[in-house]
Amino acid sequence: MTDYRRLRVALLGAGAVGSQVADLLLRHGDELADRAGAALDLVGIAVRDPDAPRDAELPRELLTTDAEELIVGADIVIELMGGIEPARSQILLALGSGADVVTANKALLATHGPEIFDAADQVGASVYYEAAAAGAIPIIRPLRDSLAGDRVQRIMGIVNGTTNYILDRMDREGSDFADVLADAQALGYAEADPTADIEGFDAAQKAAILASLAFHTAVPLGAVHREGITNVDAQMMDAARRAGYVIKLLAVCERLQVEVSDEAPTGEAISVRVYPALISREHPLASVHGANNAVFVQAEAAGNLMFYGAGAGGVQTASAVLGDVVSAARRHIAGGVGVGESTRANLPVLPVGRVTTRYQITLEVADEPGVLATVAGILAEGRVSIATALQTVITQANGESGTARIVIGTHRALEQDLSETVDRLAASGVVDRIVSVLRVEGD
Amino acid sequence: MTDYRRLRVALLGAGAVGSQVADLLLRHGDELADRAGAALDLVGIAVRDPDAPRDAELPRELLTTDAEELIVGADIVIELMGGIEPARSQILLALGSGADVVTANKALLATHGPEIFDAADQVGASVYYEAAAAGAIPIIRPLRDSLAGDRVQRIMGIVNGTTNYILDRMDREGSDFADVLADAQALGYAEADPTADIEGFDAAQKAAILASLAFHTAVPLGAVHREGITNVDAQMMDAARRAGYVIKLLAVCERLQVEVSDEAPTGEAISVRVYPALISREHPLASVHGANNAVFVQAEAAGNLMFYGAGAGGVQTASAVLGDVVSAARRHIAGGVGVGESTRANLPVLPVGRVTTRYQITLEVADEPGVLATVAGILAEGRVSIATALQTVITQANGESGTARIVIGTHRALEQDLSETVDRLAASGVVDRIVSVLRVEGD
Repeated sequence: MTDYRRLRVALLGAGAVGSQVADLLLRHGDELADRAGAALDLVGIAVRDPDAPRDAELPRELLTTDAEELIVGADIVIELMGGIEPARSQILLALGSGADVVTANKALLATHGPEIFDAADQVGASVYYEAAAAGAIPIIRPLRDSLAGDRVQRIMGIVNGTTNYILDRMDREGSDFADVLADAQALGYAEADPTADIEGFDAAQKAAILASLAFHTAVPLGAVHREGITNVDAQMMDAARRAGYVIKLLAVCERLQVEVSDEAPTGEAISVRVYPALISREHPLASVHGANNAVFVQAEAAGNLMFYGAGAGGVQTASAVLGDVVSAARRHIAGGVGVGESTRANLPVLPVGRVTTRYQITLEVADEPGVLATVAGILAEGRVSIATALQTVITQANGESGTARIVIGTHRALEQDLSETVDRLAASGVVDRIVSVLRVEGD
Repeated sequence: MTDYRRLRVALLGAGAVGSQVADLLLRHGDELADRAGAALDLVGIAVRDPDAPRDAELPRELLTTDAEELIVGADIVIELMGGIEPARSQILLALGSGADVVTANKALLATHGPEIFDAADQVGASVYYEAAAAGAIPIIRPLRDSLAGDRVQRIMGIVNGTTNYILDRMDREGSDFADVLADAQALGYAEADPTADIEGFDAAQKAAILASLAFHTAVPLGAVHREGITNVDAQMMDAARRAGYVIKLLAVCERLQVEVSDEAPTGEAISVRVYPALISREHPLASVHGANNAVFVQAEAAGNLMFYGAGAGGVQTASAVLGDVVSAARRHIAGGVGVGESTRANLPVLPVGRVTTRYQITLEVADEPGVLATVAGILAEGRVSIATALQTVITQANGESGTARIVIGTHRALEQDLSETVDRLAASGVVDRIVSVLRVEGD
């Protein structure tokens, strides 16, 4: 074996991903050294309880409860504990003592990203986080490097495997949300407490990270509009299917032209939002099944790109982490300063009310003359333009037709206008029930 | 604007891609400077004829016929002339005078890659070539960086847009190869001389580049097995469709376990091959339509990944080139030496005869008793195991059934064995015609 310079690697956390990373580092050491141009010596693994059961067999002598001692003196620190503290303090300590950092901690980057990137910039170190945005799918490097000479217009991502698994099974089987969720929990596709996934918190963190990178703007997590999938039911799925759509939980990051002021009539802004949306079955994202993830990127010059793969899982995420470790090692060997995060564009993030999309509105109304005209009038008043309208009569058990269903597809409308219009429809007296209001994405 | 360090950028070639690159460099200069951390001054464009018509309006004072003078003193040289010479000499000159090089020249890298990468290593410079493998699709960085801590097992790529356009239309319309080719030429999807595309030369160059990178091995172009699509006809497409397959021109790069010797019973080798193959309609590659490209990667830890996008086109390729220019600029500013190509694994490249795949063999035989038994016997003798066999009688115009068609799906068999077996079938006297022999990929 070549006589490589040796780098000290410290691992913080030995859960599902951490134990896989340790295992691969130890088993593939020679090969990784060839790739990195440096021997990667795993010098210790900081854990809370050295005696806890692990997914992989780890050498007992590497385990320590003293993370600080391990960090000081390391060349590369891999943070896989998750959560905000002590991850944040320990990453800052690592950067302060001259180490490069690799992390998969999306919650931390989405909330304290700027603080961490600033700390890295000040010492010329780098923070690598390929595993934080879409599991094993390489999306950070394509956005940061490959598309650095292009302008990203829009990202639409299926970035949460649990919700895609649930929606995909609802779509294929016609099942109800609660039944599929219970099954997903039994099969290990959903957590016992599924809130972070099904309410879109996980996807929102990833959206903040992707948007920050794509638009060179620090996007705070609070600026991401977030809706979960708990209101999606079998009837909505079925209606979507019959209309040529599928419902996916999408993270949408978009560059927009907005009115700024009288002097500067248009300027650029961005919108970052997570919600269940209708997408055409012809769209490449519609064929992302099961717990897979995919990120669809539209760029000015490159056109449409899609990155597809497994979204999560210990060993898949470990692949992304190790890629980062090799990058960090190469940088250490090559010398020079780290890349740093570019936030120079610093675009304003619009509230969701100022975004325009297409909508599909489904209403139940009394089957009486003039109802469709009234509904159409309320939409016109609210500046919501109708593209398609379909009225069907719901025949009752006794053969009488008391109720009708109206499905309206709109042209692009302002969310603010749409939302006020839906409120007016609900209060109009002619609408029995707002069955669903869904955005249509992807065209 | 920030007061950036200025880098001198020289462009060689102003064809479809070059003129787009120049245009974007000039128009988006400020934004690119923010991304790169350096001002990118386009100091000249070397062309053969300054008066030739161009796709984009370029400042006349930047055009020069003296490439050598332009190269010496440049910090970054972008080579977009194509062809072997003078591209090779000028890239070596650029590296020798301390510049980083960005190129989209797949023919050059597939034939002289090791010479160029060695020259870069000797001076600590870098060669960037994201645009050489799959147009605008970021695949080089994912393979070189994101998957650097993983082990790539197999790459299956649709890396030639022209042939995918032709095969996709044949599949959708049931048209003949010659008709679709003529139409593709009229529409600009195929060149007047389509040989490089339809005979698989372009795909073979890209396969050599991808395999070299994925397996850390210098793969010479001559080691790539290559077959084109000119023998694919409407009948084969139709038979594939009815069997649940589609025919795609695939670049397959595979890591294999092989017998080495008595002492070392198994070792690793690779196979790199380009041919039209059957692939299941359920496979993600089957839904790559039109002139799009996609690269499907199977890695030990990351699992299945797919990268999808526009394969070629001036402005799309320009996006990949500019991403490389930004990377080159960052490296120049950061200091340190370039990454270099890793060829340390240096695995042997197997001839196609030593590769195993599944096959589908279609035969026309006399409709007589015992023919299927004879055919099955010849396959068994040749160590080709039958997975499925379907015999159908072809009824003649006069109502008599003189001929039968046999479609055989095999288990994995050695190409050498298969090829000899097909020869024996042809010489057996019971087979009227070998209709087609196609590999089945993707499972």
